[in-house]
Amino acid sequence: MTRLTVDNINPHVRAAKYAVRGELAVKSEEFKALVAKGEAQSLPFDNVINANIGNPQQLDQKPITFFRQVASILENPQLLEKEEVLLNGLGYKSDVVDRARWLLKHVGSVGAYSASNGVPAIKESIAKFLERRDGFPANPANIYLSAGASSGVNTLLHTICANPNTGILVPIPQYPLYTATLSVLDATCVPYYLDESKNWGTDINTVRSAYEKAKADGTDVRAIVIINPGNPTGASLPEEDIRQILDFAAKENLVVMADEVYQTNVFVGKFHSFKAVLRRMQQETPGQYDGVELASLHSISKGMVGECGHRGGYFELCGFDPEVEANIYKFVSIMLCAPVIGQCFVEMMVNPPRQGDPSFELYDKEHSGIFEGLRQRANALHKAFSEMEGVQCGEPQGSMYLFPTIDLPPKAGEAAAAEGRSPDEFYCIRLLEATGICVVPGSGFGQKDGSLHFRTTFLAPGTEWTGRIVKFHKEFMEKYR
Amino acid sequence: MTRLTVDNINPHVRAAKYAVRGELAVKSEEFKALVAKGEAQSLPFDNVINANIGNPQQLDQKPITFFRQVASILENPQLLEKEEVLLNGLGYKSDVVDRARWLLKHVGSVGAYSASNGVPAIKESIAKFLERRDGFPANPANIYLSAGASSGVNTLLHTICANPNTGILVPIPQYPLYTATLSVLDATCVPYYLDESKNWGTDINTVRSAYEKAKADGTDVRAIVIINPGNPTGASLPEEDIRQILDFAAKENLVVMADEVYQTNVFVGKFHSFKAVLRRMQQETPGQYDGVELASLHSISKGMVGECGHRGGYFELCGFDPEVEANIYKFVSIMLCAPVIGQCFVEMMVNPPRQGDPSFELYDKEHSGIFEGLRQRANALHKAFSEMEGVQCGEPQGSMYLFPTIDLPPKAGEAAAAEGRSPDEFYCIRLLEATGICVVPGSGFGQKDGSLHFRTTFLAPGTEWTGRIVKFHKEFMEKYR
Ligand SMILES: Cc1ncc(COP(=O)(O)O)c(C=O)c1O
Ligand SMILES: Cc1ncc(COP(=O)(O)O)c(C=O)c1O
Repeated sequence: MTRLTVDNINPHVRAAKYAVRGELAVKSEEFKALVAKGEAQSLPFDNVINANIGNPQQLDQKPITFFRQVASILENPQLLEKEEVLLNGLGYKSDVVDRARWLLKHVGSVGAYSASNGVPAIKESIAKFLERRDGFPANPANIYLSAGASSGVNTLLHTICANPNTGILVPIPQYPLYTATLSVLDATCVPYYLDESKNWGTDINTVRSAYEKAKADGTDVRAIVIINPGNPTGASLPEEDIRQILDFAAKENLVVMADEVYQTNVFVGKFHSFKAVLRRMQQETPGQYDGVELASLHSISKGMVGECGHRGGYFELCGFDPEVEANIYKFVSIMLCAPVIGQCFVEMMVNPPRQGDPSFELYDKEHSGIFEGLRQRANALHKAFSEMEGVQCGEPQGSMYLFPTIDLPPKAGEAAAAEGRSPDEFYCIRLLEATGICVVPGSGFGQKDGSLHFRTTFLAPGTEWTGRIVKFHKEFMEKYR
Repeated sequence: MTRLTVDNINPHVRAAKYAVRGELAVKSEEFKALVAKGEAQSLPFDNVINANIGNPQQLDQKPITFFRQVASILENPQLLEKEEVLLNGLGYKSDVVDRARWLLKHVGSVGAYSASNGVPAIKESIAKFLERRDGFPANPANIYLSAGASSGVNTLLHTICANPNTGILVPIPQYPLYTATLSVLDATCVPYYLDESKNWGTDINTVRSAYEKAKADGTDVRAIVIINPGNPTGASLPEEDIRQILDFAAKENLVVMADEVYQTNVFVGKFHSFKAVLRRMQQETPGQYDGVELASLHSISKGMVGECGHRGGYFELCGFDPEVEANIYKFVSIMLCAPVIGQCFVEMMVNPPRQGDPSFELYDKEHSGIFEGLRQRANALHKAFSEMEGVQCGEPQGSMYLFPTIDLPPKAGEAAAAEGRSPDEFYCIRLLEATGICVVPGSGFGQKDGSLHFRTTFLAPGTEWTGRIVKFHKEFMEKYR
């Protein structure tokens, strides 16, 4: 018998759930390996589509040329000694070379550890971006580079959660990083349900009653998480929703954690940052909102950047106690620093080529091409869903996902139960086996009891795969009717 | 009053100590900023030397050309469309292009998330390296890519530590990642002291008595950490020490965590991997050692690679229960994946150019140049220490550090106490203020009561800075005699 068994390891690690990369994802990798080895004859499909995870460059999204050209020089600074080859032989524009020089000047080698909270000059560049975006000052000292937003969330929750009684308000459905991390930390997730009937908006009364109930149970609720634009819902919050949340947080003295990694993936209306709205409220009603503690997170993984594999991101803290920040600094320093090339991608994301720069034209073309492509795919997928029996799906608003409700016949529920599965999981596994398309059951994100969903990205190119879903769904409904 | 205060945040985060990047490191960054701004007139030195952290490329170590050329193509695969420019204009060798193609074929885009435990082909390449290194089979399925070894240690300790009563045997002095992570996890660190009189070797009787004592106190001791070659000690363990530890671990049913990030930084004798020694013992005495669970860690940050900023590493598990491995897989998947370009550096580290390959000659020259440079600096620094009053330091054996004992006059102890500092901390702060050289006090790693040390890397080039230390030390001793 081994010393470590599933029964004696950390029970909180054991309890954590992370469906986005769970059984379905593992199964899809197995199918993929078969396809790669040319051994897919037995499978009813020729290729696997990972619609389970917002991983743009795994599918069709091409990296932005400017970013990658700069990165190639950062990786091999000796290229700067052959500037004429770069410019004439490889067609790099002069601003690519300039940016690489600037970054190398401030970073040193991308192979060296940086300061624990990130390269100072990159933090300054982020602060300037935030000032342009929000119209309010930002202080580089309150900015922390991270290995993707995931690591930022991990840091923040580790600091905030003091014991099992600490409660964190988390939207349901949610990106399971939150519930998984709270499990590992053995803290209390206080779920508040998003309102599907209002485009998955945040209803402040629902938030309040979840909060009141947890408080009545003795939970020390300290923070509220908001994902905007939403994952898995795709919802893009109107300013009014954000105001209500901030007002509520101020009154109840809650830390606000705004996960804004999809801030550029907005199709309907416009993105409102929590920081900008908070600062406006502070201006409008002096004194009333001064005490709000806000942490907002961003990432290079999403948007038109899509550099997931580089693990870059940052969070900004507003209104935090300096001693608490010192502990956050210490915590991140234990892992030394965020990947430095990822930090450089953050810098380029927040400070891309501008009108008039030699690389602007191509950058702009690529950027809007990706944006339009995403919008079109979202709409095409939405249209397909709207024609499927028992499937309901709101209009695409933002992020990279659609999260349709599925109404399955009772017989499907029985077949699922016979396999010890929830009906949505059963549906998704059958979908994968029949079509090679991997999506995530709604239960992976949380959903109201009795309702069923699945989440799919709209990143995969073409419409052929949408057709596969439509066909599968029809057959599934026939079979279990 | 803020919602989060230093008194109500996670007490285990607050309790964690991480001196390598603590007050001294922060102060040295401030000095550096002054120097950079040309405002160092008031300081008694012209430059700051970060000898506090094993960060080769921050100092003199140049990256290996082959690695960086390949990385430049991985970042910008469009370069492959101009192969003749790469080969003729930039002087890239054909094996650089081949490796980049091979990696891209298996990785896809370095901007995409990989599988949670790493790119399958890279895991296979690591397994082949382990087979060549150890002469025993390795299974890619038991290999997990990580964001530096730090993240590997974090994963393993998170899984192993079930509650405050879980004990982990940790060498003292140690790299503080271990004690800091155990603090955050609220688990019990069971210290065993290394034997300074025997070149900081591991004395099995000391280990046993630490273990017995903890057991008698009711601690559930589950694992033993070994850092070989050592940090901060530099000790490189003889095979006999490793055998004794494995034998002890087998008898007491302890998981072995072997931190082997300095495996190529060995000046005296040769590196023995725990895996190879374990497999030999298993062959020699069938049955007796079959149950040993071994996790061994490696990193791209150290050795002649020195790519700290890229955050790459891996760990291999031997003898772990598959259900436990499934939980480890799930845990790493919460953070999605290790930086993909860092994973590619791991592949290149374990599979560098070989004799006969076009890039071999340069690779070999750079590699041995770095190795020799480190050895020479280690010896020069050691010589300087041997001439300093009250300083004792064993011969350099490996890793990147010297860890001399310092014998300070009682008056220095009094002056330290007056500042609320330990004497070694006091010494290191004065050293930084007087010379711009940042080292870490022994208390940051743990040391026997009454003994004092500091740790310095021998990465900084030249001997001028060694002279600064010698001069400072003399004045310090005069002042407090
Ligand atoms: C809402 C949300 N937050 C955070 C993340 C983490 O992304 P990363 O760690 O790659 O920045 C994701 C990834 O899908 C996400 O959807
Ligand atoms: C003994 C030891 N283990 C692990 C690490 C972590 O290194 P990294 O996370 O960069 O691989 C270090 C870094 O100095 C170390 O000295």
